[in-house]
Amino acid sequence: MKIIQVNEDISLKRSVDSGTEEQRAIVKDIIGAVKSGGDQALFDFTEKFDRVRLSSLTVTDAEIEEAYKEVPNATVEIIKEAAENIRVFHEKQLRNSWITTEKNGTMLGQKVTPLDSVGVYVPGGTAAYPSSVLMNVVPAQVAGVERIVMVSPPGQDGKLPAGVLVAAKESGVKEIYKVGGAQAIAALAYGTESIKPVDKITGPGNIFVALAKREVFGDVDIDMIAGPSEITVLADETARANEIAADLLSQAEHDARACSVLVTTSRKLAEETASEVEKQLAVLPRKEIAAPAIADYGAIYVAETVDEAIETVNKLAPEHLEVIMENAMEKIGKIRHAGAIFIGRYSSEPVGDYFAGPNHVLPTNGTARFSSPLNVDDFQKKSSIIMYSEQAFNENAAKIAAFARLEGLEAHARSIEARFKK
Amino acid sequence: MKIIQVNEDISLKRSVDSGTEEQRAIVKDIIGAVKSGGDQALFDFTEKFDRVRLSSLTVTDAEIEEAYKEVPNATVEIIKEAAENIRVFHEKQLRNSWITTEKNGTMLGQKVTPLDSVGVYVPGGTAAYPSSVLMNVVPAQVAGVERIVMVSPPGQDGKLPAGVLVAAKESGVKEIYKVGGAQAIAALAYGTESIKPVDKITGPGNIFVALAKREVFGDVDIDMIAGPSEITVLADETARANEIAADLLSQAEHDARACSVLVTTSRKLAEETASEVEKQLAVLPRKEIAAPAIADYGAIYVAETVDEAIETVNKLAPEHLEVIMENAMEKIGKIRHAGAIFIGRYSSEPVGDYFAGPNHVLPTNGTARFSSPLNVDDFQKKSSIIMYSEQAFNENAAKIAAFARLEGLEAHARSIEARFKK
Repeated sequence: MKIIQVNEDISLKRSVDSGTEEQRAIVKDIIGAVKSGGDQALFDFTEKFDRVRLSSLTVTDAEIEEAYKEVPNATVEIIKEAAENIRVFHEKQLRNSWITTEKNGTMLGQKVTPLDSVGVYVPGGTAAYPSSVLMNVVPAQVAGVERIVMVSPPGQDGKLPAGVLVAAKESGVKEIYKVGGAQAIAALAYGTESIKPVDKITGPGNIFVALAKREVFGDVDIDMIAGPSEITVLADETARANEIAADLLSQAEHDARACSVLVTTSRKLAEETASEVEKQLAVLPRKEIAAPAIADYGAIYVAETVDEAIETVNKLAPEHLEVIMENAMEKIGKIRHAGAIFIGRYSSEPVGDYFAGPNHVLPTNGTARFSSPLNVDDFQKKSSIIMYSEQAFNENAAKIAAFARLEGLEAHARSIEARFKK
Repeated sequence: MKIIQVNEDISLKRSVDSGTEEQRAIVKDIIGAVKSGGDQALFDFTEKFDRVRLSSLTVTDAEIEEAYKEVPNATVEIIKEAAENIRVFHEKQLRNSWITTEKNGTMLGQKVTPLDSVGVYVPGGTAAYPSSVLMNVVPAQVAGVERIVMVSPPGQDGKLPAGVLVAAKESGVKEIYKVGGAQAIAALAYGTESIKPVDKITGPGNIFVALAKREVFGDVDIDMIAGPSEITVLADETARANEIAADLLSQAEHDARACSVLVTTSRKLAEETASEVEKQLAVLPRKEIAAPAIADYGAIYVAETVDEAIETVNKLAPEHLEVIMENAMEKIGKIRHAGAIFIGRYSSEPVGDYFAGPNHVLPTNGTARFSSPLNVDDFQKKSSIIMYSEQAFNENAAKIAAFARLEGLEAHARSIEARFKK
């Protein structure tokens, strides 16, 4: 890995795939076909893209029972425990509706209401991640969403992966459909005979899924469009190079465009980590993915002071940040931009990816400057409540009417004066 | 207005202007020109579109002082009082960062951090609304955003409207630039010599502004893309037709595509309101806007029961909802989808538009199903905090590594095992 002295112009080398014109056209066509063709279009696209002709999209109870037979009991227990940890953490985010009452009788507040329905996309094939099911479904359920729908492309055997079905069942999904790609997003947004439309779609997917989500956005809500994964490790001389190298590689194995960065105040640690990465990379099963990620997007920055190192992290605004320093917890006040902050050497990133409870759906590509991890708020909306009392109204009516006229909106003033005894 | 018995297939007749291909191409060109040309491009576009050649974009202290001389003291006082009410309501939304501590030493939580910088777009010309300045700026300020920038297109005299400048000063804006249109959005997103880039852009604008916001989204955050304004009044026989008519017209005067709807359990009220609307419309200054809005998008729905009426409102998911019924406050539990809920006859919508404190930037076009009014959360982000203790790590390391291997991610398992004494 290259070692660079921190300077003014730091930013992650990032890459987002926003698709080609041709891909965008394909996605538009698919969405149009699903809108007009309904289930029939879904069967046809599934045959074309997933190489299997289905007669029903719905996953049956029997299929779920079968999945439980395939997955070892010990694994089911781990999935249950992870789901429970995620549930506990997200329940702490729940907010009440609230109201203020004033002496003059006025009441103002916010009513917090869960969305009616949410669709969760779960990728198929080699990228079938039960953890992704848990991380998307549990927050929606904690938020109080009544209808949570899962969609995922079937294998050529017409089935979904057993681990994904177990995770769906354990997190409380009651509606699962075997359909993927842009056609699944179109079905969730606009509905077909089998699949009623939802209000929001979350979950990761390939470029066609991402483009379809962007296309239906506005008609339904979507979560973020995720870029390749990123980790930044902020470390001083107390950290161990072999552990940091392992963490950098755990991101790098996700994607050849994943971004693994170390920011450190210790040149010694920088050099040791660089050589550890080479050593561990050589014996990694997914080294064909990790090696180009490290070569093209990896970097080690050396800073003069802890403050300079932290400010470098803020410029990077990484998805994942590990802080492995003396008094690490005391550093978070100055950290402004990071999706998730892992504190200390025992908070290696996979602790959060699978198990601790906080969400692993995190802002990538610098959007941690303005975005948050997936959370309960994403599945609820707030409505303002305004109950002006007669007394408050009479005290303020003239002022409100005057403000309306200042903006040239006479009917607004008259709406006030229709109630006002001068 | 047409009177319709409630049936199954109810939805607002809505209209969103998503621009023509030509408009989209113009916006892309403008953004490209600002990226490469900087301030010079801004001066050129301002000359072309706003018909004034500026030598500086920055609004000076002298210009603000002059604005205060133009605006009557009584008006300044109303703006101050409105700003204060908005501040008080939004301060109640503030949330603390939080952390949980477990017996095994683990700490988990969310760090709440304001965005570094926000840009507020304020439309020019006839649509220059000081209330819009307050509603966009105050929540950002309450959230703790350090840098709040305002942009607005100058008039042909090279000035901004005095009311807008006073509202900006009263809500605490310290950086104001005389630039509008897509070029202003490009400057906020990518920066020029005079204008440093921001992290999020909010505020309403014409179709070019809306398209530019959509174009820069992802590089920066944006608020919603607003459609035409909407009001739904939910009323029973205790409501007064003349007041409801005034309220329906207060929306209709905004836009020929604004949507004014009454949902009522009283056919008598329906008929009286229809005739009151005609009567009041005839003497309204902005009747040329309001009349087509009422004709094309207005409707009165008659329901058999209160529950049926409320369910009709939920199908409409209106931006503004007035509830003028017996025991109105007791109805809000069943109301799931509305941007702002105005309770009782003294909570006429303009009370909220200008003065009460809740935000007037609200979800339109049915997005109240999944979106919220502009609020303090929109100007903060949350970062997850994960500090696993050594004890927690040792208890769970084997499970986490197993989960990683279940998903085929060996480097994730090794990141755990690098720390784990088996």
